[in-house]
Amino acid sequence: MPGEDWTDVLDSMPAPRGRTWGGNVFIAASVDGFIARADGDMDWLTAYSAEAGETGYDDLMSRTDHVLIGRRTYETVLTFDSWPYEGKGVLVLSTTLPASGEPGGDERISVVRSIPEAVAHLNAVGAAQVYIDGGQVVQASLAAGLVEYLVITRIPILLGEGIALFGPLPADIELYTISSGQIGDGLIRESYAIVR
Amino acid sequence: MPGEDWTDVLDSMPAPRGRTWGGNVFIAASVDGFIARADGDMDWLTAYSAEAGETGYDDLMSRTDHVLIGRRTYETVLTFDSWPYEGKGVLVLSTTLPASGEPGGDERISVVRSIPEAVAHLNAVGAAQVYIDGGQVVQASLAAGLVEYLVITRIPILLGEGIALFGPLPADIELYTISSGQIGDGLIRESYAIVR
Repeated sequence: MPGEDWTDVLDSMPAPRGRTWGGNVFIAASVDGFIARADGDMDWLTAYSAEAGETGYDDLMSRTDHVLIGRRTYETVLTFDSWPYEGKGVLVLSTTLPASGEPGGDERISVVRSIPEAVAHLNAVGAAQVYIDGGQVVQASLAAGLVEYLVITRIPILLGEGIALFGPLPADIELYTISSGQIGDGLIRESYAIVR
Repeated sequence: MPGEDWTDVLDSMPAPRGRTWGGNVFIAASVDGFIARADGDMDWLTAYSAEAGETGYDDLMSRTDHVLIGRRTYETVLTFDSWPYEGKGVLVLSTTLPASGEPGGDERISVVRSIPEAVAHLNAVGAAQVYIDGGQVVQASLAAGLVEYLVITRIPILLGEGIALFGPLPADIELYTISSGQIGDGLIRESYAIVR
Protein backbone atom coordinates (compact mmCIF):
# COMPACT_ATOMS: atom_id res chain seq x y z
CA MET A 1 0.00 0.00 0.00
CA PRO A 2 1.40 3.38 -0.97
CA GLY A 3 1.88 5.87 1.87
CA GLU A 4 -0.65 6.38 4.60
CA ASP A 5 -4.23 5.35 4.03
CA TRP A 6 -5.98 8.50 2.87
CA THR A 7 -9.41 7.31 4.00
CA ASP A 8 -8.25 7.44 7.63
CA VAL A 9 -8.31 11.20 7.31
CA LEU A 10 -11.96 11.31 6.26
CA ASP A 11 -13.63 10.68 9.57
CA SER A 12 -11.43 13.04 11.52
CA MET A 13 -12.23 16.12 9.45
CA PRO A 14 -15.02 18.55 10.39
CA ALA A 15 -17.62 19.22 7.70
CA PRO A 16 -16.90 22.31 5.59
CA ARG A 17 -18.69 25.54 6.48
CA GLY A 18 -22.34 25.62 5.43
CA ARG A 19 -22.51 21.88 4.76
CA THR A 20 -23.20 18.77 6.83
CA TRP A 21 -21.04 16.76 4.43
CA GLY A 22 -17.71 16.45 2.65
CA GLY A 23 -17.37 15.65 -1.05
CA ASN A 24 -14.98 12.94 -2.22
CA VAL A 25 -13.85 12.24 -5.75
CA PHE A 26 -12.29 8.87 -6.54
CA ILE A 27 -11.64 8.48 -10.21
CA ALA A 28 -9.37 6.82 -12.75
CA ALA A 29 -7.76 8.84 -15.51
CA SER A 30 -5.15 8.35 -18.21
CA VAL A 31 -1.79 10.02 -17.62
CA ASP A 32 -2.96 12.76 -20.00
CA GLY A 33 -6.09 13.32 -17.94
CA PHE A 34 -8.96 11.58 -19.71
CA ILE A 35 -11.59 9.53 -17.91
CA ALA A 36 -13.07 8.06 -21.11
CA ARG A 37 -12.66 8.27 -24.85
CA ALA A 38 -14.77 10.87 -26.63
CA ASP A 39 -17.50 8.25 -27.26
CA GLY A 40 -17.50 7.19 -23.59
CA ASP A 41 -15.46 4.02 -24.20
CA MET A 42 -13.56 2.83 -21.12
CA ASP A 43 -12.12 -0.44 -22.43
CA TRP A 44 -8.62 1.06 -22.29
CA LEU A 45 -9.15 1.40 -18.53
CA THR A 46 -10.63 -1.99 -17.71
CA ALA A 47 -7.59 -3.65 -19.30
CA TYR A 48 -5.68 -2.68 -16.16
CA SER A 49 -6.34 -3.99 -12.71
CA ALA A 50 -5.44 -3.50 -9.09
CA GLU A 51 -6.63 -5.10 -5.88
CA ALA A 52 -9.65 -3.26 -4.50
CA GLY A 53 -7.82 -2.96 -1.18
CA GLU A 54 -4.98 -1.24 -2.94
CA THR A 55 -7.14 1.31 -4.69
CA GLY A 56 -9.03 2.23 -1.50
CA TYR A 57 -12.34 2.27 -3.38
CA ASP A 58 -14.08 -0.31 -1.18
CA ASP A 59 -12.89 1.48 1.94
CA LEU A 60 -14.24 4.78 0.63
CA MET A 61 -17.59 3.28 -0.37
CA SER A 62 -18.01 1.70 3.06
CA ARG A 63 -17.73 5.20 4.56
CA THR A 64 -19.98 6.80 1.94
CA ASP A 65 -23.64 7.54 2.77
CA HIS A 66 -24.54 9.54 -0.34
CA VAL A 67 -23.58 9.50 -3.99
CA LEU A 68 -23.82 12.42 -6.40
CA ILE A 69 -23.56 11.45 -10.07
CA GLY A 70 -24.55 12.80 -13.46
CA ARG A 71 -27.07 11.42 -15.90
CA ARG A 72 -24.49 9.74 -18.12
CA THR A 73 -22.88 7.96 -15.16
CA TYR A 74 -26.35 6.94 -13.97
CA GLU A 75 -27.17 5.48 -17.37
CA THR A 76 -23.87 3.57 -17.36
CA VAL A 77 -24.63 2.22 -13.88
CA LEU A 78 -28.04 1.02 -15.13
CA THR A 79 -26.20 -1.37 -17.48
CA PHE A 80 -24.42 -3.06 -14.53
CA ASP A 81 -25.63 -6.47 -13.31
CA SER A 82 -26.60 -5.04 -9.94
CA TRP A 83 -27.23 -1.63 -8.40
CA PRO A 84 -23.89 -0.65 -6.84
CA TYR A 85 -25.29 1.97 -4.44
CA GLU A 86 -27.52 -0.24 -2.26
CA GLY A 87 -28.16 1.42 1.10
CA LYS A 88 -26.89 4.82 0.01
CA GLY A 89 -28.77 7.94 -0.96
CA VAL A 90 -28.24 8.54 -4.67
CA LEU A 91 -28.59 11.98 -6.24
CA VAL A 92 -28.53 12.22 -10.01
CA LEU A 93 -27.89 15.64 -11.49
CA SER A 94 -30.02 15.97 -14.62
CA THR A 95 -32.27 18.52 -16.24
CA THR A 96 -34.10 15.87 -18.27
CA LEU A 97 -34.67 12.73 -16.16
CA PRO A 98 -38.14 12.37 -14.57
CA ALA A 99 -38.19 12.96 -10.81
CA SER A 100 -38.53 9.96 -8.51
CA GLY A 101 -42.30 10.29 -8.02
CA GLU A 102 -43.10 11.03 -11.68
CA PRO A 103 -44.04 8.48 -14.37
CA GLY A 104 -40.91 6.59 -15.44
CA GLY A 105 -39.05 7.85 -12.38
CA ASP A 106 -36.53 5.59 -10.59
CA GLU A 107 -37.40 5.25 -6.90
CA ARG A 108 -33.81 4.47 -5.98
CA ILE A 109 -32.62 7.96 -6.90
CA SER A 110 -33.34 11.60 -6.17
CA VAL A 111 -33.11 13.72 -9.28
CA VAL A 112 -31.65 17.17 -8.69
CA ARG A 113 -31.69 19.88 -11.34
CA SER A 114 -28.67 21.90 -10.29
CA ILE A 115 -25.60 21.85 -8.07
CA PRO A 116 -27.22 24.25 -5.53
CA GLU A 117 -30.25 21.92 -5.36
CA ALA A 118 -27.90 18.99 -4.73
CA VAL A 119 -26.16 20.90 -1.92
CA ALA A 120 -29.48 21.83 -0.31
CA HIS A 121 -30.76 18.26 -0.56
CA LEU A 122 -27.60 16.78 0.98
CA ASN A 123 -27.70 19.30 3.82
CA ALA A 124 -31.41 18.65 4.42
CA VAL A 125 -30.85 14.92 4.85
CA GLY A 126 -27.71 15.44 6.92
CA ALA A 127 -25.35 13.69 4.55
CA ALA A 128 -21.83 13.05 5.89
CA GLN A 129 -19.59 11.53 3.22
CA VAL A 130 -20.64 12.15 -0.37
CA TYR A 131 -19.03 10.28 -3.25
CA ILE A 132 -19.03 12.45 -6.38
CA ASP A 133 -18.65 10.75 -9.76
CA GLY A 134 -18.98 11.52 -13.44
CA GLY A 135 -17.04 13.89 -15.67
CA GLN A 136 -19.28 16.92 -15.69
CA VAL A 137 -20.39 16.54 -12.07
CA VAL A 138 -16.80 16.28 -10.85
CA GLN A 139 -15.82 19.38 -12.83
CA ALA A 140 -18.86 21.32 -11.58
CA SER A 141 -18.27 20.20 -7.99
CA LEU A 142 -14.61 21.20 -8.06
CA ALA A 143 -15.51 24.58 -9.54
CA ALA A 144 -18.21 25.07 -6.88
CA GLY A 145 -15.83 24.21 -4.03
CA LEU A 146 -17.68 21.04 -3.01
CA VAL A 147 -14.76 18.60 -3.06
CA GLU A 148 -12.66 17.84 0.02
CA TYR A 149 -10.74 14.79 -1.18
CA LEU A 150 -9.52 13.95 -4.64
CA VAL A 151 -8.09 10.49 -5.36
CA ILE A 152 -6.83 9.89 -8.87
CA THR A 153 -5.77 6.49 -10.14
CA ARG A 154 -3.50 7.16 -13.08
CA ILE A 155 -3.67 4.56 -15.83
CA PRO A 156 -0.31 4.26 -17.66
CA ILE A 157 -1.54 5.26 -21.09
CA LEU A 158 -1.80 8.43 -23.18
CA LEU A 159 -5.05 8.68 -25.13
CA GLY A 160 -4.51 12.01 -26.84
CA GLU A 161 -8.18 12.95 -26.65
CA GLY A 162 -11.38 12.07 -24.82
CA ILE A 163 -13.54 13.23 -21.94
CA ALA A 164 -11.34 15.29 -19.63
CA LEU A 165 -11.24 14.78 -15.88
CA PHE A 166 -10.58 18.45 -15.21
CA GLY A 167 -12.08 21.61 -16.62
CA PRO A 168 -12.07 25.36 -16.10
CA LEU A 169 -12.07 26.73 -12.55
CA PRO A 170 -12.94 30.15 -11.17
CA ALA A 171 -9.58 30.18 -9.35
CA ASP A 172 -6.59 27.94 -8.57
CA ILE A 173 -7.27 25.04 -6.23
CA GLU A 174 -4.34 24.27 -3.96
CA LEU A 175 -3.96 20.60 -3.04
CA TYR A 176 -2.32 18.86 -0.12
CA THR A 177 -0.68 15.59 -1.14
CA ILE A 178 -1.71 12.82 1.23
CA SER A 179 -0.14 9.86 -0.49
CA SER A 180 1.12 8.52 -3.78
CA GLY A 181 2.32 5.19 -4.97
CA GLN A 182 2.19 2.45 -7.52
CA ILE A 183 -0.51 -0.23 -7.33
CA GLY A 184 -1.59 -3.14 -9.47
CA ASP A 185 -0.63 -3.13 -13.15
CA GLY A 186 1.54 -0.01 -13.01
CA LEU A 187 -1.31 2.20 -11.86
CA ILE A 188 -0.38 5.22 -9.75
CA ARG A 189 -2.74 6.28 -7.01
CA GLU A 190 -2.48 9.93 -6.00
CA SER A 191 -4.56 11.22 -3.09
CA TYR A 192 -5.02 14.87 -2.29
CA ALA A 193 -6.97 16.99 0.16
CA ILE A 194 -8.24 20.32 -1.11
CA VAL A 195 -6.62 23.20 0.79
CA ARG A 196 -8.91 26.09 1.75
CA MET B 1 13.79 8.50 -3.07
CA PRO B 2 10.62 7.01 -4.53
CA GLY B 3 10.97 3.60 -6.09
CA GLU B 4 13.92 2.59 -8.20
CA ASP B 5 15.99 5.26 -9.87
CA TRP B 6 14.56 5.59 -13.35
CA THR B 7 17.76 7.04 -14.81
CA ASP B 8 19.53 3.72 -14.16
CA VAL B 9 17.44 2.30 -16.97
CA LEU B 10 18.64 4.86 -19.51
CA ASP B 11 22.10 3.55 -20.21
CA SER B 12 21.04 -0.06 -20.50
CA MET B 13 18.50 0.49 -23.27
CA PRO B 14 19.40 0.11 -26.95
CA ALA B 15 18.62 3.10 -29.17
CA PRO B 16 15.26 2.88 -30.95
CA ARG B 17 15.21 1.71 -34.54
CA GLY B 18 16.39 4.31 -37.03
CA ARG B 19 17.93 6.56 -34.40
CA THR B 20 21.26 6.78 -32.59
CA TRP B 21 19.50 8.35 -29.62
CA GLY B 22 16.67 8.12 -27.11
CA GLY B 23 14.38 11.01 -26.23
CA ASN B 24 13.67 11.89 -22.61
CA VAL B 25 11.03 14.24 -21.28
CA PHE B 26 11.37 15.53 -17.75
CA ILE B 27 8.73 18.10 -16.96
CA ALA B 28 6.64 19.57 -14.17
CA ALA B 29 2.88 19.88 -14.54
CA SER B 30 -0.09 20.78 -12.39
CA VAL B 31 -2.35 17.89 -11.36
CA ASP B 32 -4.71 19.01 -14.14
CA GLY B 33 -1.90 18.81 -16.69
CA PHE B 34 -0.69 22.35 -17.32
CA ILE B 35 2.98 23.28 -17.61
CA ALA B 36 2.37 27.04 -17.48
CA ARG B 37 -0.49 29.50 -17.30
CA ALA B 38 -1.88 30.71 -20.61
CA ASP B 39 0.48 33.73 -20.53
CA GLY B 40 3.51 31.51 -19.80
CA ASP B 41 3.59 32.35 -16.07
CA MET B 42 5.26 29.66 -13.95
CA ASP B 43 5.23 31.37 -10.55
CA TRP B 44 2.70 28.83 -9.30
CA LEU B 45 5.35 26.16 -9.96
CA THR B 46 8.40 27.82 -8.47
CA ALA B 47 6.53 28.21 -5.16
CA TYR B 48 7.14 24.49 -4.65
CA SER B 49 10.51 22.89 -4.15
CA ALA B 50 12.21 19.54 -3.95
CA GLU B 51 15.84 18.52 -3.62
CA ALA B 52 17.44 18.19 -7.05
CA GLY B 53 18.56 14.70 -6.05
CA GLU B 54 14.98 13.78 -5.38
CA THR B 55 13.68 14.99 -8.71
CA GLY B 56 16.39 13.19 -10.69
CA TYR B 57 16.88 16.23 -12.95
CA ASP B 58 20.60 16.65 -12.25
CA ASP B 59 21.14 12.95 -12.80
CA LEU B 60 19.31 13.10 -16.13
CA MET B 61 21.20 16.20 -17.28
CA SER B 62 24.55 14.59 -16.45
CA ARG B 63 23.64 11.78 -18.86
CA THR B 64 22.28 14.13 -21.53
CA ASP B 65 24.42 15.01 -24.54
CA HIS B 66 21.80 16.87 -26.61
CA VAL B 67 18.85 19.10 -25.88
CA LEU B 68 15.87 19.68 -28.15
CA ILE B 69 13.74 22.69 -27.20
CA GLY B 70 11.29 25.08 -28.81
CA ARG B 71 11.70 28.78 -29.47
CA ARG B 72 9.67 29.84 -26.46
CA THR B 73 11.71 27.65 -24.11
CA TYR B 74 14.89 28.98 -25.73
CA GLU B 75 13.78 32.57 -25.15
CA THR B 76 12.99 31.75 -21.51
CA VAL B 77 16.42 30.18 -21.08
CA LEU B 78 18.02 33.36 -22.47
CA THR B 79 16.65 35.24 -19.44
CA PHE B 80 18.54 32.93 -17.03
CA ASP B 81 21.71 34.16 -15.36
CA SER B 82 23.79 31.54 -17.11
CA TRP B 83 23.46 29.19 -20.08
CA PRO B 84 22.23 25.91 -18.57
CA TYR B 85 23.26 23.68 -21.48
CA GLU B 86 27.05 24.18 -21.39
CA GLY B 87 28.83 21.28 -23.07
CA LYS B 88 25.68 19.92 -24.71
CA GLY B 89 24.46 20.17 -28.27
CA VAL B 90 21.37 22.39 -28.30
CA LEU B 91 18.76 22.17 -31.05
CA VAL B 92 16.06 24.82 -31.14
CA LEU B 93 12.98 24.04 -33.19
CA SER B 94 11.86 27.28 -34.83
CA THR B 95 10.68 28.48 -38.21
CA THR B 96 11.64 32.09 -37.47
CA LEU B 97 14.96 32.21 -35.57
CA PRO B 98 18.08 32.96 -37.68
CA ALA B 99 20.35 29.95 -38.19
CA SER B 100 23.59 29.78 -36.26
CA GLY B 101 25.80 31.17 -39.05
CA GLU B 102 23.38 33.94 -40.09
CA PRO B 103 23.37 37.56 -38.80
CA GLY B 104 21.89 37.59 -35.29
CA GLY B 105 22.34 33.85 -34.98
CA ASP B 106 23.31 32.25 -31.66
CA GLU B 107 26.45 30.13 -32.06
CA ARG B 108 25.53 27.99 -29.06
CA ILE B 109 22.52 26.51 -30.81
CA SER B 110 21.56 24.70 -33.99
CA VAL B 111 18.25 25.91 -35.36
CA VAL B 112 16.12 23.19 -36.90
CA ARG B 113 12.99 23.97 -38.90
CA SER B 114 11.06 20.75 -38.35
CA ILE B 115 10.93 17.57 -36.27
CA PRO B 116 12.31 15.45 -39.18
CA GLU B 117 15.22 17.90 -39.51
CA ALA B 118 15.86 17.56 -35.76
CA VAL B 119 15.86 13.76 -36.04
CA ALA B 120 18.27 13.82 -39.00
CA HIS B 121 20.60 16.27 -37.22
CA LEU B 122 20.68 14.19 -34.01
CA ASN B 123 21.38 11.02 -35.99
CA ALA B 124 24.12 12.76 -38.02
CA VAL B 125 25.99 13.84 -34.89
CA GLY B 126 25.42 10.47 -33.19
CA ALA B 127 23.43 11.83 -30.27
CA ALA B 128 22.78 9.33 -27.44
CA GLN B 129 20.53 10.83 -24.76
CA VAL B 130 18.36 13.74 -25.87
CA TYR B 131 16.50 15.89 -23.37
CA ILE B 132 13.28 17.23 -24.93
CA ASP B 133 11.66 20.28 -23.38
CA GLY B 134 8.96 22.83 -24.12
CA GLY B 135 5.23 22.44 -24.52
CA GLN B 136 4.87 22.21 -28.28
CA VAL B 137 8.12 20.28 -28.79
CA VAL B 138 7.13 17.68 -26.19
CA GLN B 139 3.70 17.25 -27.79
CA ALA B 140 5.19 16.99 -31.28
CA SER B 141 7.88 14.55 -30.12
CA LEU B 142 5.36 12.30 -28.38
CA ALA B 143 3.14 12.34 -31.46
CA ALA B 144 6.15 11.52 -33.68
CA GLY B 145 7.22 8.60 -31.48
CA LEU B 146 10.51 10.19 -30.40
CA VAL B 147 10.14 9.87 -26.63
CA GLU B 148 11.47 6.85 -24.71
CA TYR B 149 11.15 8.16 -21.15
CA LEU B 150 8.59 10.47 -19.63
CA VAL B 151 9.07 11.82 -16.13
CA ILE B 152 6.34 14.05 -14.78
CA THR B 153 6.63 15.96 -11.54
CA ARG B 154 3.07 16.68 -10.47
CA ILE B 155 2.63 19.97 -8.64
CA PRO B 156 -0.25 19.77 -6.12
CA ILE B 157 -2.42 22.47 -7.63
CA LEU B 158 -5.29 22.70 -10.11
CA LEU B 159 -4.99 25.69 -12.47
CA GLY B 160 -8.13 25.18 -14.56
CA GLU B 161 -6.48 26.48 -17.72
CA GLY B 162 -3.08 27.15 -19.26
CA ILE B 163 -0.56 25.56 -21.60
CA ALA B 164 -1.24 21.82 -21.66
CA LEU B 165 1.50 19.24 -21.27
CA PHE B 166 -0.26 16.77 -23.54
CA GLY B 167 -1.99 17.14 -26.86
CA PRO B 168 -3.53 15.07 -29.63
CA LEU B 169 -1.83 11.84 -30.70
CA PRO B 170 -2.14 9.72 -33.83
CA ALA B 171 -2.73 6.67 -31.59
CA ASP B 172 -2.69 5.59 -27.94
CA ILE B 173 0.71 5.51 -26.27
CA GLU B 174 1.06 2.72 -23.77
CA LEU B 175 3.33 3.48 -20.82
CA TYR B 176 5.30 1.28 -18.46
CA THR B 177 5.36 2.68 -14.94
CA ILE B 178 8.92 2.69 -13.62
CA SER B 179 8.41 4.51 -10.35
CA SER B 180 6.20 6.90 -8.47
CA GLY B 181 6.46 8.69 -5.19
CA GLN B 182 6.16 11.86 -3.22
CA ILE B 183 9.09 14.26 -3.07
CA GLY B 184 9.69 17.71 -1.58
CA ASP B 185 6.67 19.95 -0.94
CA GLY B 186 4.04 17.35 -1.78
CA LEU B 187 5.22 16.92 -5.35
CA ILE B 188 4.63 13.55 -6.96
CA ARG B 189 7.22 12.23 -9.38
CA GLU B 190 5.91 9.71 -11.92
CA SER B 191 8.33 8.05 -14.32
CA TYR B 192 7.29 6.04 -17.32
CA ALA B 193 8.93 4.28 -20.23
CA ILE B 194 7.07 4.36 -23.53
CA VAL B 195 6.03 0.85 -24.58
CA ARG B 196 6.46 -0.01 -28.28
